[in-house]
Amino acid sequence: MSDFFQIDALCGSARTSRLRTAHSDVETPVFMPVGTVATVKGVPQETLEELGVEILLANTYHLFLRPGTETIRKLGGLHRFMSWERAVLTDSGGYQVFSLSDLRKLREEGVEFRSHLDGALHFLSPETATAAQIALGADIIMAFDECTEYPADREHARESMEMTVRWAERCKRYFEEHKEEVPWKSVVGGRWSVASSDPAFANDQRLTTNDQHLFGIVQGGMHAELRRESAERTVEIGFRGYAIGGLSVGEPRTLTREMVEATLPHLPQGAPRYLMGVGTPDEIVEYAALGIDMMDCVLPTRAARHGLLYTSEGKLAIKNARFAQDDGPLDPRCGCRVCARYSRAYLRHLYNSGETLAAVLNTIHNLAFYLDTMRQVRQSIKLGHLEAFLSEVRSRSLNSSAQGEDPA
Amino acid sequence: MSDFFQIDALCGSARTSRLRTAHSDVETPVFMPVGTVATVKGVPQETLEELGVEILLANTYHLFLRPGTETIRKLGGLHRFMSWERAVLTDSGGYQVFSLSDLRKLREEGVEFRSHLDGALHFLSPETATAAQIALGADIIMAFDECTEYPADREHARESMEMTVRWAERCKRYFEEHKEEVPWKSVVGGRWSVASSDPAFANDQRLTTNDQHLFGIVQGGMHAELRRESAERTVEIGFRGYAIGGLSVGEPRTLTREMVEATLPHLPQGAPRYLMGVGTPDEIVEYAALGIDMMDCVLPTRAARHGLLYTSEGKLAIKNARFAQDDGPLDPRCGCRVCARYSRAYLRHLYNSGETLAAVLNTIHNLAFYLDTMRQVRQSIKLGHLEAFLSEVRSRSLNSSAQGEDPA
Repeated sequence: MSDFFQIDALCGSARTSRLRTAHSDVETPVFMPVGTVATVKGVPQETLEELGVEILLANTYHLFLRPGTETIRKLGGLHRFMSWERAVLTDSGGYQVFSLSDLRKLREEGVEFRSHLDGALHFLSPETATAAQIALGADIIMAFDECTEYPADREHARESMEMTVRWAERCKRYFEEHKEEVPWKSVVGGRWSVASSDPAFANDQRLTTNDQHLFGIVQGGMHAELRRESAERTVEIGFRGYAIGGLSVGEPRTLTREMVEATLPHLPQGAPRYLMGVGTPDEIVEYAALGIDMMDCVLPTRAARHGLLYTSEGKLAIKNARFAQDDGPLDPRCGCRVCARYSRAYLRHLYNSGETLAAVLNTIHNLAFYLDTMRQVRQSIKLGHLEAFLSEVRSRSLNSSAQGEDPA
Repeated sequence: MSDFFQIDALCGSARTSRLRTAHSDVETPVFMPVGTVATVKGVPQETLEELGVEILLANTYHLFLRPGTETIRKLGGLHRFMSWERAVLTDSGGYQVFSLSDLRKLREEGVEFRSHLDGALHFLSPETATAAQIALGADIIMAFDECTEYPADREHARESMEMTVRWAERCKRYFEEHKEEVPWKSVVGGRWSVASSDPAFANDQRLTTNDQHLFGIVQGGMHAELRRESAERTVEIGFRGYAIGGLSVGEPRTLTREMVEATLPHLPQGAPRYLMGVGTPDEIVEYAALGIDMMDCVLPTRAARHGLLYTSEGKLAIKNARFAQDDGPLDPRCGCRVCARYSRAYLRHLYNSGETLAAVLNTIHNLAFYLDTMRQVRQSIKLGHLEAFLSEVRSRSLNSSAQGEDPA
């Protein structure tokens, strides 16, 4: 598997690596912006490229319902559909089925649920969720899991974890039998590849020699020994990478960290480790230090739409009256196009006026902040200075809390 | 006045010219995108630059209410506030007071009205509206007029027109006494000018030697002889340019054109002529052919947000089911960044999913279409081929109507 995942540097438990996917190489530790319905809300793909995004996440549940995975398959897959030539990861839809849909009925076979859009009845199983992800054609796809509710007692968490293990086996079996159906493999030429300026995409040879990669997901609720068992049984099935799921579901942050620490020793060093749905800028640094390679979270993009901005001086609420006459940049230490051009006073005006440009610019800045943070993490690992960077981030976090700028 | 307005080429009644403003040179005929509250909804200023926008319009009424013209003056004026180094025109607020505000009381002195935002009581007069525009510091500012309602009988239209003439005199008087108070003249250096990459803006000498330009507005309802009298009396007062106001207020298009044709012969050849609030892509070509130099309209930006897109093949509604599997560009003849990258299927998906990026990309395309149209108008005038271009536009318009693609 060394062609897919190669570790470059180690620093304590942390590591930098390169994920080689069919569409691009991704340096880890990496933060993946969330592009739920094949768009990072408000940000054109060319701006994501400019920000240095190498991989983004799209939600199978949403795309399954609209425009439909079959529609996207016919249009050549997600990359062509959204005109994004770098890597994409899709989740399996499991989490959204449990968090968004109504009237779900869980059986061994799969989950029947009603669409949150129109109430129509749908069914997702390990097989159909994997088929949907093959149709979407992301570079990395996820096994269909049951996201254990929080809190869950040991007995329920075990039943749920065991179901996820059985489903993981079915996902792998379906994937092995159908992975050749990924839309890249049937498309030769066409509008987008001809127009492509990205050498990785133009290189058809490379596209046809690369597969999708299926990741397994560790569950087990907030029970360390179930996490361990889930990890061991998932690794036994064998996947290209391993995710830690079912966290950031309402539990205290100390418990999240405890579960991550309980899981990591049971995942192989030689495969990428993906912590799902995490976190704040401080948390992503902490988890990278523990040895996590990949993370995703709606926080930077959702907070941006609510006028909450991450800066080197802490989090700020742009609507605050003290910014009304502030002609300085959002973050004097940030080099993003928003900080280079616009003032806090202007951004406050846009937000308070309910202007679309507020969401656009705020999102660009927050993503820049997250991506820069991860760039610094990788650099610190390579230089062997991660501990120093971690201290800096922790003291920034304390200052920010002391200023009372960290809205709940 | 030849330093401000210089005609370059003539073709029938049409002309190309150069407006030299304190912040940039503007080639006419020009279409000015509307940036109501100091933002063209959804589009970052760097994208407007990329599109070739040389002048945009902002609304004094909106900025007067929020964030307040005094706030913007303290921040160095509108250019610095919104980080836009090219030309800006502000309207006087007259039209919005009449169309948006509640409980307005019109007196000779001015208009008392309630804000549409919070119901607070405000007062605008020729003097305060001019003061507000000096504080905003646009390159071109407009006299405070009464926009005559439609329909209006001759007697009412005459009274209204005469009030506008008396107000125009007061605007000019106030402007002459206070024009040195424009914020550029008190600002030396500072963040934005230091960071500026625009030679016109970095050249402080030029900023301090250039003034704002005040334009008068012709009213007169739908009565040709009142339009003529209004034009003559406004020209007699003497302005740097002349606008035709009070049109596109619900009257039939033939009547709009009739009023423009009744007014133009009474405006001086040697000053810019600005037709306010007009129009469709076809109309802006028609009016340029009649000799109009400047136009503005919310149509391209507002239509974009409703998924209505202007193309070389006519107008289309992107939500239409026939685009669901259409992987071609919005307009195969358009070179904008949206048409270069995204498919109709993807744009339809974004619009139908209520995604912010739909508004962003649709607006960029519609503006590109309008700006390209005006580029072609200027080119056709310079080459003496405007009549041929006009025929092409008219036949395109007929085709579009025949396809039933022109929503009301």
